[in-house]
Amino acid sequence: MVVVMQEGSTEEQIQHVIDKLVAMGFDVHRSTGATHTVLGAVGVLTDFDPRHIELLDGVREVVRITQPYKLASRVFRPEGTVVDVGKGVRFGGPEVVVAAGPCAVESAEQVQAIAERVARLGAKLLRGGAFKPRSSPYTFQGLGEQGLKLLRQAADKNGLLVVSEVMDPSQISLMVSYVDVLQVGARNMQNYHLLRALGEVSKPVLLKRGMSATIEELLLSAEYIMAGGNYNVILCERGIRTFETYTRNTLDIAAIPVIKKLSHLPIIADPSHGTGRRDKVSPMARAAVAAGADGLLIEVHHDPEHALSDGAQSLYPDQFAQLMAELRIIAPAVGRRIA
Amino acid sequence: MVVVMQEGSTEEQIQHVIDKLVAMGFDVHRSTGATHTVLGAVGVLTDFDPRHIELLDGVREVVRITQPYKLASRVFRPEGTVVDVGKGVRFGGPEVVVAAGPCAVESAEQVQAIAERVARLGAKLLRGGAFKPRSSPYTFQGLGEQGLKLLRQAADKNGLLVVSEVMDPSQISLMVSYVDVLQVGARNMQNYHLLRALGEVSKPVLLKRGMSATIEELLLSAEYIMAGGNYNVILCERGIRTFETYTRNTLDIAAIPVIKKLSHLPIIADPSHGTGRRDKVSPMARAAVAAGADGLLIEVHHDPEHALSDGAQSLYPDQFAQLMAELRIIAPAVGRRIA
Amino acid sequence: MVVVMQEGSTEEQIQHVIDKLVAMGFDVHRSTGATHTVLGAVGVLTDFDPRHIELLDGVREVVRITQPYKLASRVFRPEGTVVDVGKGVRFGGPEVVVAAGPCAVESAEQVQAIAERVARLGAKLLRGGAFKPRSSPYTFQGLGEQGLKLLRQAADKNGLLVVSEVMDPSQISLMVSYVDVLQVGARNMQNYHLLRALGEVSKPVLLKRGMSATIEELLLSAEYIMAGGNYNVILCERGIRTFETYTRNTLDIAAIPVIKKLSHLPIIADPSHGTGRRDKVSPMARAAVAAGADGLLIEVHHDPEHALSDGAQSLYPDQFAQLMAELRIIAPAVGRRIA
Amino acid sequence: MVVVMQEGSTEEQIQHVIDKLVAMGFDVHRSTGATHTVLGAVGVLTDFDPRHIELLDGVREVVRITQPYKLASRVFRPEGTVVDVGKGVRFGGPEVVVAAGPCAVESAEQVQAIAERVARLGAKLLRGGAFKPRSSPYTFQGLGEQGLKLLRQAADKNGLLVVSEVMDPSQISLMVSYVDVLQVGARNMQNYHLLRALGEVSKPVLLKRGMSATIEELLLSAEYIMAGGNYNVILCERGIRTFETYTRNTLDIAAIPVIKKLSHLPIIADPSHGTGRRDKVSPMARAAVAAGADGLLIEVHHDPEHALSDGAQSLYPDQFAQLMAELRIIAPAVGRRIA
Repeated sequence: MVVVMQEGSTEEQIQHVIDKLVAMGFDVHRSTGATHTVLGAVGVLTDFDPRHIELLDGVREVVRITQPYKLASRVFRPEGTVVDVGKGVRFGGPEVVVAAGPCAVESAEQVQAIAERVARLGAKLLRGGAFKPRSSPYTFQGLGEQGLKLLRQAADKNGLLVVSEVMDPSQISLMVSYVDVLQVGARNMQNYHLLRALGEVSKPVLLKRGMSATIEELLLSAEYIMAGGNYNVILCERGIRTFETYTRNTLDIAAIPVIKKLSHLPIIADPSHGTGRRDKVSPMARAAVAAGADGLLIEVHHDPEHALSDGAQSLYPDQFAQLMAELRIIAPAVGRRIA
Repeated sequence: MVVVMQEGSTEEQIQHVIDKLVAMGFDVHRSTGATHTVLGAVGVLTDFDPRHIELLDGVREVVRITQPYKLASRVFRPEGTVVDVGKGVRFGGPEVVVAAGPCAVESAEQVQAIAERVARLGAKLLRGGAFKPRSSPYTFQGLGEQGLKLLRQAADKNGLLVVSEVMDPSQISLMVSYVDVLQVGARNMQNYHLLRALGEVSKPVLLKRGMSATIEELLLSAEYIMAGGNYNVILCERGIRTFETYTRNTLDIAAIPVIKKLSHLPIIADPSHGTGRRDKVSPMARAAVAAGADGLLIEVHHDPEHALSDGAQSLYPDQFAQLMAELRIIAPAVGRRIA
Repeated sequence: MVVVMQEGSTEEQIQHVIDKLVAMGFDVHRSTGATHTVLGAVGVLTDFDPRHIELLDGVREVVRITQPYKLASRVFRPEGTVVDVGKGVRFGGPEVVVAAGPCAVESAEQVQAIAERVARLGAKLLRGGAFKPRSSPYTFQGLGEQGLKLLRQAADKNGLLVVSEVMDPSQISLMVSYVDVLQVGARNMQNYHLLRALGEVSKPVLLKRGMSATIEELLLSAEYIMAGGNYNVILCERGIRTFETYTRNTLDIAAIPVIKKLSHLPIIADPSHGTGRRDKVSPMARAAVAAGADGLLIEVHHDPEHALSDGAQSLYPDQFAQLMAELRIIAPAVGRRIA
Repeated sequence: MVVVMQEGSTEEQIQHVIDKLVAMGFDVHRSTGATHTVLGAVGVLTDFDPRHIELLDGVREVVRITQPYKLASRVFRPEGTVVDVGKGVRFGGPEVVVAAGPCAVESAEQVQAIAERVARLGAKLLRGGAFKPRSSPYTFQGLGEQGLKLLRQAADKNGLLVVSEVMDPSQISLMVSYVDVLQVGARNMQNYHLLRALGEVSKPVLLKRGMSATIEELLLSAEYIMAGGNYNVILCERGIRTFETYTRNTLDIAAIPVIKKLSHLPIIADPSHGTGRRDKVSPMARAAVAAGADGLLIEVHHDPEHALSDGAQSLYPDQFAQLMAELRIIAPAVGRRIA
């Protein structure tokens, strides 16, 4: 921690701050300049609120110098993590992995029709919601376990893996018997009960960034899962909330290279939720791959006009085919490939 | 719903949109102007995604005209709701109700010392966390049930009621035996499992606005609780996330009069979390009352420098005394009083 | 400046950073801890981009420790600045000063009718736009010099001073002969040609915060004016742009106490532009005074439904009278008074 | 305009609104549903503030249906605009046009060294600031006319065109004799005096989006220039201000396809200012092209560590070479090419 004293702070004020820091267990180094005094406090405290020092008389600013996350930090595994989700599908390796499917599972016919198409076009995972977080209590909330069964059947029939969202710790034991990757939605990124419970699961977790979460907070939420022993975490950028309303959210493409530098975990993008409109999904999917994303999560529906949830942001299968063709051109520019 | 067609949209496109709307069960009224055609679609559908229409050829914009919440709307109870939390303490009436106490319960001595002070100064509820949501897995997570017991004892001894945060549906049955008001934290505002479970409880719920939640989303979350039968919901503005970082969050004081107009539910403010710094708490508490807040949630600690959590935003008891005196001057300006 | 090295940075990397800093003229102090090395660089460089160091190998973070503004800093005048705008009216003293009037000057009758009312109710300045910044080129752009004349006449007749907006350096010489305070609008907060030109004027300047400007940027813009020799700067919070759209902007009330601490300049609030809706103006005006504002800028119109600009956010004279009465109750709570 | 009445609004209230609208010159169509009444107001008023109606009793919401911009709208030129900036270089055609160069012109040697490199690698325009908008009054403000001369010489010698920023109307006459494209910076996007003056110039204008400007506001600023007769406007996305601070701004890549749909004007991206850090420039440049950008504005410096301005976000020439090679792979995916 570095403590910057105000211009004109008194010797007494400085000494009071030093005494506090020493009492807390820090080693303190003092630098005195023409106008400012700076104190470097070195120690191993992790549970410390720098605002305590900030409020002392004569202090201008306190800067924390240790990152609050450790296991999620790039330093922990400088070579990067490859998360193997089964059947040889790996996030974080040379291949850009695509998960595709409907927003919500609606029927056996629907999910099979979509699974068949996306598998043929190069997707490796089938995505689909069985439990749906909806902002209104009056809208379709998902098929529950029946939805999971349909997903599993359609995936198995088409050589795909399954990723689906878990909303509550009580659903975990049910879900692990049907899915290959457990997804945590943006609204639950700081649901610590859920994160802790997922730390004890042996399945990979796909953790979405909250709408107003900083990159550091996303990595801290990953740390919750990893602290429990589950290191197979895949991060997902899905758009942040800003003042611009032409798109549902602002997909923060720059978060992809930023996270690549700060963390060893794979990072993918969800351009469907990130834009909320079908006609913007393909441009943003291409942008994410061009920026270095390890994968994509894309909503595809064979009949989006009749989808029960978020059809407006689902690609038609033909659009998905076109997108995959474009991605195959782009991926080599960043040394990657698409199946 | 109103559908605005693009300038130059063709008759065919207009007819296609009308056909779609009629097929969905809407009555359609058409207005044709010099440059634009506007379609008014009147119906009773609640589960409908306007983006479906927005993506049709020739459509420029779709405007939803029914609010997605009903029970939380001012129309539902034009006279306003007064939430009685016990012992004659009422949120939404002529009195501005103050809840005060430490961020986290730490010990019997701590909670008793603080309860005694805040009760004497006019607080009606004792606040304090027994289960703490923390962004880092390595920091103090609360005393759990032991904390609840200490809260209850200190409150009873000093004639106070208890408000404390619930983080997971699994904690509810335990909590209802200790607390008078169940608090939902900002990070859980869209934890729908928790909201639904609280709809079945007979205790009042204090629902905090999420850091990136719009006012409409806050009211929709209240709707989840009310849809389950629990109409005793108190809303709380606690700061939203913006680009400005001098304060931890930006306390959206304007949300207070906005919510007063849109909803019948009481609305209070939390200037402690809204600013994150002790020296900004009193100015913002005064501002909230001047803007019409029905109550305040304020962190007070007798020894904030040694608090285990958020001490930097806790007032000293003397500061709290000074604040209460200021509020007693301000409240009459808005036709209210402080005990 | 403080340079925090990455965990595991090599001795060579550290030495390279030290060499760079020394070559730039800094004195460097080194603190070595168990996991991190921290370098304190002390010097007097003002024109220095810390990102140069941030990009060197092994560097984790660079923290600037000198504030980029000097003249606007509280340290420069710890006792605070009182800006005398004439006729004994002072911003920053014990009185909360109210400037009121129409958004735009429309006619002699209009401005006289309003001036007469607001003067009687306690306003000290007449506000009104003669040159209007409008986001559309097709809307009313103001009466120009004729508007200034009407403002001056109405103000003189009613014992008021005049504040009006200057949009371009070319207007300054004209404006100084009509107005007492030159206002810089939010859109021009970083129009450096204008700011520099105002530094050479002997009239006070009312500088509004830009919609996306940080508090630091506002103080830097004040610094531009002060660096030219004009120390009579009044700052104005008028709302920032956030994701919330129920109000036109989010009036950042907390900026008032924050600026009071960082700077010696007076800070007022504009709840009319800050909310954009008449029915929210009074609650936010009360909140601003309760938080410690030195003054208010309020739009009042005797016939807002026919106003040529922003009538929807103008108070009726009766509402203004009611507000002034409420403010007279609130001001003593913060040791202030209203005329 | 569409006026949505509140649930339960009275017949009198509805009639009052209709009367108002008719008095304003609108034709009014009324739709009455089970719970809501909706009024469609059709007319040709451009200078109208919908908040006037919104504040009437019984009104819930008012929706403007005509876009406030006309000349900048896609409807005005459905086929799209190609802006020819000279020597056969065209923005908006099949080629993705790259402008590269230093942030600020510093010396003849510097600008020549950089011009030579970027020309050889495929850039078509030389960018460089002669007049620099700087947030601090104490930092380097540019070489002025001497800088323009150096830019012109270096460009001519290497077959490049020149783009440089104009900050004030008073600079225009000087600049047009040196540059091929006049750039308006983000801070001046709503400097209406400058925009109007540029409407009368016969050179193309590159208009950057303001840090907190919506896409609609950017198009309205373009409208100011076009309303004066200058239709050669090139738009530029350069990052918006959000809560995330790891990057200097959040480059809103989705704005590229959104603007393509709303407007006929070419849209380019500036990943240098959009990220503020050299190591994020290339990923975001690739993303912009993958999303459909018509061009790029990139800072390149042969010796960025000694640059007088923004060196930290300038690419080394070798990095620029690598980026151009990557872009040549990506462009065909969107049916484009790079010279």
